Amino acid sequence: MSKVFVNIAMTLDGYTAPEGMAIEHWTDPTYKNWGAKWGSLMTWLMNQQYFRDKLKFGPGGETGPVNDLVRTTFERTGANIMGKRMFEQGEASWPEDAPFHTPVYVLTHEKRGPWPRPGGTTFYFINDGAERALELAREAAGSRDIRISGGANVIQQYLNMGVVEELEIALAPVLFGSGRRLFENLREPGPQFRIDNVLAGSAATHLRYVRK
Amino acid sequence: MSKVFVNIAMTLDGYTAPEGMAIEHWTDPTYKNWGAKWGSLMTWLMNQQYFRDKLKFGPGGETGPVNDLVRTTFERTGANIMGKRMFEQGEASWPEDAPFHTPVYVLTHEKRGPWPRPGGTTFYFINDGAERALELAREAAGSRDIRISGGANVIQQYLNMGVVEELEIALAPVLFGSGRRLFENLREPGPQFRIDNVLAGSAATHLRYVRK
Repeated sequence: MSKVFVNIAMTLDGYTAPEGMAIEHWTDPTYKNWGAKWGSLMTWLMNQQYFRDKLKFGPGGETGPVNDLVRTTFERTGANIMGKRMFEQGEASWPEDAPFHTPVYVLTHEKRGPWPRPGGTTFYFINDGAERALELAREAAGSRDIRISGGANVIQQYLNMGVVEELEIALAPVLFGSGRRLFENLREPGPQFRIDNVLAGSAATHLRYVRK
Repeated sequence: MSKVFVNIAMTLDGYTAPEGMAIEHWTDPTYKNWGAKWGSLMTWLMNQQYFRDKLKFGPGGETGPVNDLVRTTFERTGANIMGKRMFEQGEASWPEDAPFHTPVYVLTHEKRGPWPRPGGTTFYFINDGAERALELAREAAGSRDIRISGGANVIQQYLNMGVVEELEIALAPVLFGSGRRLFENLREPGPQFRIDNVLAGSAATHLRYVRK
């Protein structure tokens, strides 16, 4: 059966996004530093050959075990679930053939019809909650897995539903000081995980946890 | 020359101590769960032979690479610096020959003379700030290193002073949901670290960062 998993980058101080990282702040000088911060969190990924190819960054890039991990993450995924904010940020920055190549369920209050992209990605805008999005994702994913893509608040919803079976974190040696934390708003007792695997990269430590 | 280092356990959600972990709450049922939480954060350490021996927990324990790391941490340390809260908690729970065997500088407003313990630990109560404590610790440590022992707020002070050269974190696969976070109240731009080493233990991931 399909697994529900998270694979996300996090700073050492627990943030998945710097303060001010939102499309409405792109031209707001108050948040002038968020691009650089985001880049420092994602350095490990930007250098990987598979990711560069998917995002049309051009040729080159690393092809070692971290690249294999990035490829595996994409290839295992049969459906993605994401929040409205992540979608909006991506809508403005992804290439035309958005880098998912699966159905993507966007949790939002906005009413909007499906938005198919070249390359197999179709965005579906779900107005009736996280559980419904997961049902649809399960149907769509077939034998492949369901990735809770982000942002932090969406991951928190699924952690609180107790459905996240695998939690993969690329821990970057970076401190943001502020922003959106991955682990907040969790019910107690929270979900329980055990260490499954650790891959020591040079620009991030790839931690894999499995639900107990 | 002596290095200034931190070696501390942290939960996946960034806490070094659960909510309510303070001596004044030991009998307060509001915080009934803190002992269990603290235990879950420290499982990896409690099982190590070197630590069990130092804390007089009795014989046995693991003797692998994590135990070597615990031993190295103790043996390299020529002086410790800690906060008043950590001291008070320890005063009530450490064995009579406190497990440091070095001078320990306690940052506090309390005026109190040095308190020597059997086994080579002497607690000095420092009323004139973190910089002065570091000066004294440097003098005392000789060629050995200075450990900023905790708690989180004391580590934050030294991170903000820019003097922490090595940051060692035992990352436990545990979520506290509340408590005292290690990385908070940091100035921007914060200190910069690079990954130096990762030791994958079964109950914690031992991350070692070095100042850039």
